[in-house]
Amino acid sequence: MFFSRLELDRDKSRALYLQVADHLRQRIESGDLASETRLPASRVLAKQLGVNRVTVVNAYAELEAEGLVTTRVGSGTYVTGPHQSHAPDEPPPIPVRLGSSQPRRHWDAGHMMTEMMRLARQPGVISFAAGTPASEFIPVNEFRRAINDVLRRDGAEALQYEEAAGYFPLRDSIAELLQAQAIEVKASDILITAGCQQAVDITLRVLARSEHSALVVEEPCYLGLLDLLSSRRITPVGVPMDEQGLRVDQLEQIILRHRPSLIYVTPNFHNPTGITMPLGRRQALLEIAARYGVPILEDTTYDELYYDHQPLPTLKSLDTAGIVFQAGGFSKTLVPGIRIGYLVAPSQLQERLVATKQTTDILTSPLNQRALHAYLESGHFPIHLKTVRDAYRTRRDAMLAAMQQHFPLEACWRCPAGGIYLWVEMPQHGPTATELYLTAINYNVAFSIGSVFSAGGYFAHALRLNFAGCPPDEIEEGIRRLGKAWKELLARSNTLVEPRPASVHIL
Amino acid sequence: MFFSRLELDRDKSRALYLQVADHLRQRIESGDLASETRLPASRVLAKQLGVNRVTVVNAYAELEAEGLVTTRVGSGTYVTGPHQSHAPDEPPPIPVRLGSSQPRRHWDAGHMMTEMMRLARQPGVISFAAGTPASEFIPVNEFRRAINDVLRRDGAEALQYEEAAGYFPLRDSIAELLQAQAIEVKASDILITAGCQQAVDITLRVLARSEHSALVVEEPCYLGLLDLLSSRRITPVGVPMDEQGLRVDQLEQIILRHRPSLIYVTPNFHNPTGITMPLGRRQALLEIAARYGVPILEDTTYDELYYDHQPLPTLKSLDTAGIVFQAGGFSKTLVPGIRIGYLVAPSQLQERLVATKQTTDILTSPLNQRALHAYLESGHFPIHLKTVRDAYRTRRDAMLAAMQQHFPLEACWRCPAGGIYLWVEMPQHGPTATELYLTAINYNVAFSIGSVFSAGGYFAHALRLNFAGCPPDEIEEGIRRLGKAWKELLARSNTLVEPRPASVHIL
Repeated sequence: MFFSRLELDRDKSRALYLQVADHLRQRIESGDLASETRLPASRVLAKQLGVNRVTVVNAYAELEAEGLVTTRVGSGTYVTGPHQSHAPDEPPPIPVRLGSSQPRRHWDAGHMMTEMMRLARQPGVISFAAGTPASEFIPVNEFRRAINDVLRRDGAEALQYEEAAGYFPLRDSIAELLQAQAIEVKASDILITAGCQQAVDITLRVLARSEHSALVVEEPCYLGLLDLLSSRRITPVGVPMDEQGLRVDQLEQIILRHRPSLIYVTPNFHNPTGITMPLGRRQALLEIAARYGVPILEDTTYDELYYDHQPLPTLKSLDTAGIVFQAGGFSKTLVPGIRIGYLVAPSQLQERLVATKQTTDILTSPLNQRALHAYLESGHFPIHLKTVRDAYRTRRDAMLAAMQQHFPLEACWRCPAGGIYLWVEMPQHGPTATELYLTAINYNVAFSIGSVFSAGGYFAHALRLNFAGCPPDEIEEGIRRLGKAWKELLARSNTLVEPRPASVHIL
Repeated sequence: MFFSRLELDRDKSRALYLQVADHLRQRIESGDLASETRLPASRVLAKQLGVNRVTVVNAYAELEAEGLVTTRVGSGTYVTGPHQSHAPDEPPPIPVRLGSSQPRRHWDAGHMMTEMMRLARQPGVISFAAGTPASEFIPVNEFRRAINDVLRRDGAEALQYEEAAGYFPLRDSIAELLQAQAIEVKASDILITAGCQQAVDITLRVLARSEHSALVVEEPCYLGLLDLLSSRRITPVGVPMDEQGLRVDQLEQIILRHRPSLIYVTPNFHNPTGITMPLGRRQALLEIAARYGVPILEDTTYDELYYDHQPLPTLKSLDTAGIVFQAGGFSKTLVPGIRIGYLVAPSQLQERLVATKQTTDILTSPLNQRALHAYLESGHFPIHLKTVRDAYRTRRDAMLAAMQQHFPLEACWRCPAGGIYLWVEMPQHGPTATELYLTAINYNVAFSIGSVFSAGGYFAHALRLNFAGCPPDEIEEGIRRLGKAWKELLARSNTLVEPRPASVHIL
């Protein structure tokens, strides 16, 4: 056993994972844990210490970010030697190294998120954590009919390879949907992707090709983008937001300093904040991006989920300079499980984008593309969207009402005009959203912590709540539990004792 | 009009695209075409010159690779200035630049391939070019039944988000298939991907993270890998093949010189050569890779398509060092259009691979995963495989017989023990496969030229023929046409006149 008794101070203000990391760091630096020592598997150590595995994983990630440990393929986490040296012609060491330069964020956010999601899925937990739309509105029967129609009509053709750019009639249907939004677009300008995420990935592959690329993001920003940037070692440059979205007044300076490859922005019903960018700000953004020749990637994932008024014109529809890429999809509005999104790019780039799509996964399932096309042609989509909007508006309002009733007075939020998220801010001087999460999970309620959405490590005192995924009575119950957890945490924090040294006993 | 008359010398041994490039290069270098001049769109110039668009595209790519022209978003191809200079604080030029550092191969191969594929799909053309399996064996009805069963059983759950790693019962079914091949694997070791290509892409994202990564490939090699490496700026280091596959005796030196992140290899029924690596060579490969700690990515796409004897043990099944990644799929053996493949990796890496999968497209269609699972559980798969093997064996033999009858005596090939490709070599001193292609397309027959499969620009005198995609009578007719085109080309080459200066008249 690695630790006979590492007594963690559960009431201390220092996070548990940092306590574990502190202890290991001390032992590594003192030489007690020698270079090449294998640390226990995270599951094993978590069990020994009686903590969540996420705690150990984060402790190891902390040490890896500091260069004190390294992870190896098929092997485990090892203590890094203080001065590793290999003669240049010596073969590299065995077992295979993964490289210890895994960016820290990848673990801090993506990994923590995965673990939190796992906790959130435990039975009995009411979860506002995921970005999942409500299952009850997915038109299962209409899709079953569409698939059957397609297979009867097209037979094996629907299951064979085809153009990487996508099934032309679907591209045409999507072009029509976009033309209705005053976007000048032809079917041939549209690339079908495996969901909106892949549209973003492919755009980055083409525009941010170098490791030294920088990308402008909203601060906070969609987690899936930050993880993608991290995994591709692209530097996200966060621009603060105000109640009108990205602070365009700060953009010029950032462009001049960082020479970004791209500006990524979600003007409608932003994830995670729910903020909508007004028309004037959109025009200012386009103007400055065009002036400096920086392309914009506009994410329209939530555009059709508006509750108060029709959405404002997209950046793409206002783009006269030919610099806007638009990524959209059907996962949040219609059905996540067929994995279909699209990318509209300046025409000149279309061939290169299609070639890039082909290198990632050859093509998107032609069966699913054809089924979506058949569904869109059936005329059900506008009716479906109205149903979903009505239901989500009701849920949003139910959550707002419950928050008003159950949350402590310190909580602060804004009503989003669309989308599926509510962003709640906690006071800066009090406990963090992570602490609230760990308290709340004992009350069987979960959410997303704000800091996972931050490029710069901010928003430790914010939480994101998905109001769309649960029916109103569950929302009411979940918010009641969360309010209770929050109040309990506040009561605990107020009786916080002074930090004292961790009591650690080692075998 | 850009050229009033650029007279191309169609009988010359210099390729047409090089003639076009030569002419443009001369005009750029002489200053006749000034910096920032926009070249005509490739479609327009191709029409003017009466050549295939692929010719112009390749001419521009040639010049782009030489740094003489550059492509810009939404704009076109422009002559690059001889000495571009911008003061450091000056904003970048407008319109948006795509970067002129697009690797040359991307255009030379991937793009040429796309254009050739387009030609090959014209009506009346018998095509041996694509990597497509035969449509007539795709079990459409069984899949329709499987999808309906799944939707009836799981409802909206089959269309909702789920674990990025994949639908667990499918991972379990695949683990069983692999266990039957003596691979020690659990369901949790398997990551479901959007086809085998994505399994390769994800492995590269994790193991070859740096732009300076090098990757060992067979020479020649799967085109989709080379395009992927090119788009990610990873350097492919080709190792020659002999009739036993990758020359392992040359590997040590290459590893020491290039320190590759990974060795990519297709031991069974290699694409494009059809070669199978014998057991002794497999063991030698594993031994040397383990000694130097270089992971191996084994592509098993064609493993189930064996015609003469059961396939040899996979590298994964022989791997005692925990260094083999195995990528496989169902596109060539069962159904391309549901886009499902898988990756088996050393367990320690599983979490990181799943996180990476999530950044690329969140998850693979759960509906398609569940349908494949239901199909595999139905017990039809082994029967289907036997049907396909029998049919493809007949097609292979029909193609071999037709080649024997119709090809010129100079042609040279080997009988593949499996897979779907025949690799044919032309004499080094004669016309190239590209010239043969351009002659053959007039006879309404198409194939893939060897050089697109080469990391180092070799195999200009080789062609790849897919024998699986057409029924035997079409194979016989297509090979007859190809033989005729080949003989015509040989007759033409023998009367070749000496090169003379291109006759170019400019407006």
